[in-house]
Amino acid sequence: MFERVAVIGLGLIGGSIGLAVAEHLPGVATTGYDVDPAVRRRAAERGLAGTICDAPAEAVREADLVILCVPVGAMREAAGEIAGALKPGALVSDVGSSKRSITRALTEALPGQPVIPAHPVAGTEHSGPDAGFATLFHHRWCILTPPAGADPALVTQLASFWRALGSRVEVMDAEHHDLVLAVTSHIPHLIAYTIVGTASDLEEVTRGEVIKYSAGGFRDFTRIAASDPTMWRDVFLANRDAVLEMLERFLADLEGMREAIKAGDGDTMFDLFARTRAIRRGIIELGQDDARPDFGRADHG
Amino acid sequence: MFERVAVIGLGLIGGSIGLAVAEHLPGVATTGYDVDPAVRRRAAERGLAGTICDAPAEAVREADLVILCVPVGAMREAAGEIAGALKPGALVSDVGSSKRSITRALTEALPGQPVIPAHPVAGTEHSGPDAGFATLFHHRWCILTPPAGADPALVTQLASFWRALGSRVEVMDAEHHDLVLAVTSHIPHLIAYTIVGTASDLEEVTRGEVIKYSAGGFRDFTRIAASDPTMWRDVFLANRDAVLEMLERFLADLEGMREAIKAGDGDTMFDLFARTRAIRRGIIELGQDDARPDFGRADHG
Repeated sequence: MFERVAVIGLGLIGGSIGLAVAEHLPGVATTGYDVDPAVRRRAAERGLAGTICDAPAEAVREADLVILCVPVGAMREAAGEIAGALKPGALVSDVGSSKRSITRALTEALPGQPVIPAHPVAGTEHSGPDAGFATLFHHRWCILTPPAGADPALVTQLASFWRALGSRVEVMDAEHHDLVLAVTSHIPHLIAYTIVGTASDLEEVTRGEVIKYSAGGFRDFTRIAASDPTMWRDVFLANRDAVLEMLERFLADLEGMREAIKAGDGDTMFDLFARTRAIRRGIIELGQDDARPDFGRADHG
Repeated sequence: MFERVAVIGLGLIGGSIGLAVAEHLPGVATTGYDVDPAVRRRAAERGLAGTICDAPAEAVREADLVILCVPVGAMREAAGEIAGALKPGALVSDVGSSKRSITRALTEALPGQPVIPAHPVAGTEHSGPDAGFATLFHHRWCILTPPAGADPALVTQLASFWRALGSRVEVMDAEHHDLVLAVTSHIPHLIAYTIVGTASDLEEVTRGEVIKYSAGGFRDFTRIAASDPTMWRDVFLANRDAVLEMLERFLADLEGMREAIKAGDGDTMFDLFARTRAIRRGIIELGQDDARPDFGRADHG
């Protein structure tokens, strides 16, 4: 197992890694850095890492594993800042949602350094140093995308690290990862952001009405659309091709539904609405969502 | 207050009304009917109404208030079945998600009978006689759409009934209701059903992968896409015009985002992603959703 882990970027994911290591791997020392001094102060208060450093080079100097937890668009710069300070052989990984672009950025910025990108498929709509918690990765998958020629022993070691934090681990190539995540994460976020924007801009229906009657379904989309804007801008810039490809499919299917509604074709609607339940059942059976009605939401208000 | 309430259709909403009346209005007698004998048996076991009847005419005979809780497309037939059995002056209402079509169906099928359509904006993805619970309407809005010439005293009485079940009540015309609900409920359901269908049909990404990595956002859509297919088919058939109008707006906005992604225009993305958070805050502040991260979902699996 790694003895010293450095976490660069102390938001939701970075902070959760620090807390999860403290809980599950108490023998492992952690150092942390964030570019924002206010975040570093809060991280120190919450104990998001054993030592909070004021410079990235300082945080990584003795680390065996460095995990970059910054927005996808900031990966290259973050890698550049630690390039000269890394121990030879220290493994550099990350948590970003777009693996092709990050693999390129990290391998180019860190020649000769072992790099194995990773993506824990977990999160909430909150962000920043107060958002993290130690159990975020429990029962969630973490996808490793080792580049060609990666040391299998390091892949195994990184997989063990994530398993220790409660994750299940899968290995695939970066290209396939980007396609899978375009469907299961990026397009859902794009759709949610867009429909919330559409609803905000209507003239015939006020914002107050949209908010009041949101329990009809809309409120679910607002949770996703409350996610971190910088992170998500970077994801769409970085995973452009796969996102556009999947968006094309979705738009074609939506056009089909529009035609069915126009034509009053109830059978086509019923067929779709009936078969989508199977996927939900699969998700519940695999422990990937709460089986209680309405996610077990509390009665609130 | 009404002394006897008849509930026709004993699924999620009808069953919840029966249970809520028993809890909040113990002096009010309830009768219930469902077209499906198996549902009637289960309703009797769960006590979804004080008396479960084997014919709709029998259920409504002594009622002051009759609430039709059947799919939108079955409203006209359900109204026809009780037409001859209603007490003169008994108020007929419903719970459907499309008010123009239902107003037409009920007033045509029940000439001379007072009709005030209603829509409790509440629900879960579950359906059937086991899905209902007494607190479903707490803190949710119920929209009344009295037709021109409706008796104001009956509107007040129906509003009091829904408030007694824990609802907040709003009155608006049926046309505006249909536009508001198209945005806050119907389009979100259409989008959710469609993206779950798209994801199920991909060749490059397996169904198993979609399920495994659904925590990236997709799983939220599967909850909505597990809703009752008959109910939703009927909603899209009945509220066609408003749905198509709102779908047009959404598609135009989505096209704008596609262009931004194609062009690598991060500023346009960031602007949208940053302003959608305000709507989420409004929903939380108004008590229309759970403020905890991730809806307070339990760690499961």
